[in-house]
Amino acid sequence: MLYHVQMDVRVPHDVDPARFEQLKADEKSRAQALQRDGTWRHLWRVTGRYANISIFDVPDHDALHAILSSLPLYPFMDIVVTPLARHPSAID
Amino acid sequence: MLYHVQMDVRVPHDVDPARFEQLKADEKSRAQALQRDGTWRHLWRVTGRYANISIFDVPDHDALHAILSSLPLYPFMDIVVTPLARHPSAID
Amino acid sequence: MLYHVQMDVRVPHDVDPARFEQLKADEKSRAQALQRDGTWRHLWRVTGRYANISIFDVPDHDALHAILSSLPLYPFMDIVVTPLARHPSAID
Amino acid sequence: MLYHVQMDVRVPHDVDPARFEQLKADEKSRAQALQRDGTWRHLWRVTGRYANISIFDVPDHDALHAILSSLPLYPFMDIVVTPLARHPSAID
Amino acid sequence: MLYHVQMDVRVPHDVDPARFEQLKADEKSRAQALQRDGTWRHLWRVTGRYANISIFDVPDHDALHAILSSLPLYPFMDIVVTPLARHPSAID
Amino acid sequence: MLYHVQMDVRVPHDVDPARFEQLKADEKSRAQALQRDGTWRHLWRVTGRYANISIFDVPDHDALHAILSSLPLYPFMDIVVTPLARHPSAID
Amino acid sequence: MLYHVQMDVRVPHDVDPARFEQLKADEKSRAQALQRDGTWRHLWRVTGRYANISIFDVPDHDALHAILSSLPLYPFMDIVVTPLARHPSAID
Amino acid sequence: MLYHVQMDVRVPHDVDPARFEQLKADEKSRAQALQRDGTWRHLWRVTGRYANISIFDVPDHDALHAILSSLPLYPFMDIVVTPLARHPSAID
Amino acid sequence: MLYHVQMDVRVPHDVDPARFEQLKADEKSRAQALQRDGTWRHLWRVTGRYANISIFDVPDHDALHAILSSLPLYPFMDIVVTPLARHPSAID
Amino acid sequence: MLYHVQMDVRVPHDVDPARFEQLKADEKSRAQALQRDGTWRHLWRVTGRYANISIFDVPDHDALHAILSSLPLYPFMDIVVTPLARHPSAID
Repeated sequence: MLYHVQMDVRVPHDVDPARFEQLKADEKSRAQALQRDGTWRHLWRVTGRYANISIFDVPDHDALHAILSSLPLYPFMDIVVTPLARHPSAID
Repeated sequence: MLYHVQMDVRVPHDVDPARFEQLKADEKSRAQALQRDGTWRHLWRVTGRYANISIFDVPDHDALHAILSSLPLYPFMDIVVTPLARHPSAID
Repeated sequence: MLYHVQMDVRVPHDVDPARFEQLKADEKSRAQALQRDGTWRHLWRVTGRYANISIFDVPDHDALHAILSSLPLYPFMDIVVTPLARHPSAID
Repeated sequence: MLYHVQMDVRVPHDVDPARFEQLKADEKSRAQALQRDGTWRHLWRVTGRYANISIFDVPDHDALHAILSSLPLYPFMDIVVTPLARHPSAID
Repeated sequence: MLYHVQMDVRVPHDVDPARFEQLKADEKSRAQALQRDGTWRHLWRVTGRYANISIFDVPDHDALHAILSSLPLYPFMDIVVTPLARHPSAID
Repeated sequence: MLYHVQMDVRVPHDVDPARFEQLKADEKSRAQALQRDGTWRHLWRVTGRYANISIFDVPDHDALHAILSSLPLYPFMDIVVTPLARHPSAID
Repeated sequence: MLYHVQMDVRVPHDVDPARFEQLKADEKSRAQALQRDGTWRHLWRVTGRYANISIFDVPDHDALHAILSSLPLYPFMDIVVTPLARHPSAID
Repeated sequence: MLYHVQMDVRVPHDVDPARFEQLKADEKSRAQALQRDGTWRHLWRVTGRYANISIFDVPDHDALHAILSSLPLYPFMDIVVTPLARHPSAID
Repeated sequence: MLYHVQMDVRVPHDVDPARFEQLKADEKSRAQALQRDGTWRHLWRVTGRYANISIFDVPDHDALHAILSSLPLYPFMDIVVTPLARHPSAID
Repeated sequence: MLYHVQMDVRVPHDVDPARFEQLKADEKSRAQALQRDGTWRHLWRVTGRYANISIFDVPDHDALHAILSSLPLYPFMDIVVTPLARHPSAID
């Protein structure tokens, strides 16, 4: 089942830089693993912002929440989830 | 180049039903043709709303505007365009 | 799977009253049938507004969209859908 | 009497982690006690957010405020309360 | 139990003037009757707007909704209800 | 002359607790004195929020500003003032 | 006592042009009379919009509401009133 | 002096098409004349919307308002004006 | 040329009080000097808020920006500028 | 290809002043280099705000994101990007 997820990252200006760099590296590993297993179907950068628009393919809401809430940068992200249904004009 | 496009359709309650059904049929044909030629890469329904979230792949802004502004339902749609850049963690 | 759905009804002041009364009666029948079969789990009135807050239990997004978009008052409603996950402190 | 309550938790990035974990544990105990006595009728997680949507059944506004304002995480929460009336199409 | 209610009246420019004047007269009668029986405790005009801020004293949410939704101008009003609790610094 | 005033208190999570408790005690004394002299006509808690809705009766704008800006918690409050006129349907 | 008033005029596209021109002429006469008697102290056009920002000097809220609600274009205006107090740095 | 102007055109669905086409043609002529004389310095289409972002170079606010309010589509446009100052890092 | 300027002051709760009092004193001196030379034509307090509404009379946008950005409290202010044109009904 | 970019700079009040001055100097150098090579086509100050409105001319979204995200003040900026298409009434 598909979900549209927008994540905006808010970096506090007085966060410890080394700790944050580590979180970013962990986030990248996690994002790539989830893309490889087909869960994180698309991952795009919103041009000009520290934000992404993503499409997730997961069995249900609980699975999506478990994934999002365990992302390393989750405490710094503002997330909006939109459930996507099949469009009657879609051909895929 | 990829663009994220959200389209919300506003149907005036006193629109002529036959005219509107014709516009919807035309819109569907056009959307499917654009999907087949690879321009309209993804088309999803926002669950519970007369709205879609789409991904377009076009050469430039002018090409996107030409497509969107010639959609049969364009006069009834509120459209927001977001340019998408490559995400550094994307694997595709 | 549970979804939180808020529906606000907008009645155009120049709608035909008889037609609208019929739609309301049809909506009521449909809502009660969906409650009886366990799909529309909760239905509450937002105090002071022509609006409801509801909980739906359906297999997936497509099932929810099919139900909502076929409600008799759908053309007059502004709907917001929020997917609900299990809360770690919930006891049910 | 029923109230719809949405609670969004804002965690300051420089809060003391041990203190916050203790508050979360206290909050969980309190939430479960209130569910067991029938006051906190429903408790759902908003998918992808550190937020919940809840239904409370209490005698009056004062009782609700006393409960919410004594929650351990209350100082970190943004709360919106909506009073719920019986819906004329509800069958329960 | 006290509720804070803000009502904004939206008058469509093409409404029938005679019908609207009758609704306003009916609304006034109803508002005064509810004030006399102690239900509509306060009724103030928002300066410069066709809107009021009111305090209602009713047994519960259902009673409030029954009153508001039967006001003659209800179809033309945008209403926001806020439940009021006792303030710990209030002396009355 | 009557004014509707909504005050939302924002407590920084790293404020000194002892200092803040003193400010709250001072605020309570001041609020009760102003109620006793008829200036602060009504004081209600917004259910579920650290906020109040109040009605002030003062000679003019300057008097209201002098009172509000000298409240002990003023530096922590977001205040919105609405001037109230007599409603043509009010009976008091 | 001074009030800051912003008025935005909304002209329905299907209003009768002759009727509207008459209302505009009446509005102008009324605005000029109120300026001459010192009530409407300042009247400025918001550049690029059918809107004005004004300063009124009236005895109280009721007087202001009586003036605004009797303006010929009142049914077509969205009005926001802000009470102005003396600024401690003002020299006049 | 430079002004940033965003114009959003709202076309009522029941406007007379011939009349509107004439207004659009008149608007185009006027826009091109103003560009040729250096007043309307830039004119861009907001991709996907019936809207433009423009830069005007005029002597003062009154000159800008006179131009905008006499545009043929003015009654159908929502306009926001932002005055632009020289940027200390600009090299032109 | 006239500009309408609204300034909202945001005081961080952990700012150094002595430094802030000095900035306020400097701001007052500057505001009074600008009023005396006719630049800062009006200065009013928004009742109940640490904010002002002002009218400036300056030759152009650059002059206004130079003045505002050199105000001692500028780093703590959220400022909105609205260019004011002559109103056709104004008599001054 | 043209993009409209608005950048609002948020300076935390407790940032190290020397570090921030260095970032501003670096930002200025970078902005001027990008203007000289034709990438940053226009750069204007929003009057009264620590913000700019800019026009960029770059090959694609990725190029724009690379530029914006490497600006020295990027961590302190809130950026909104709008893709600009050719306007049918533009003469250039």
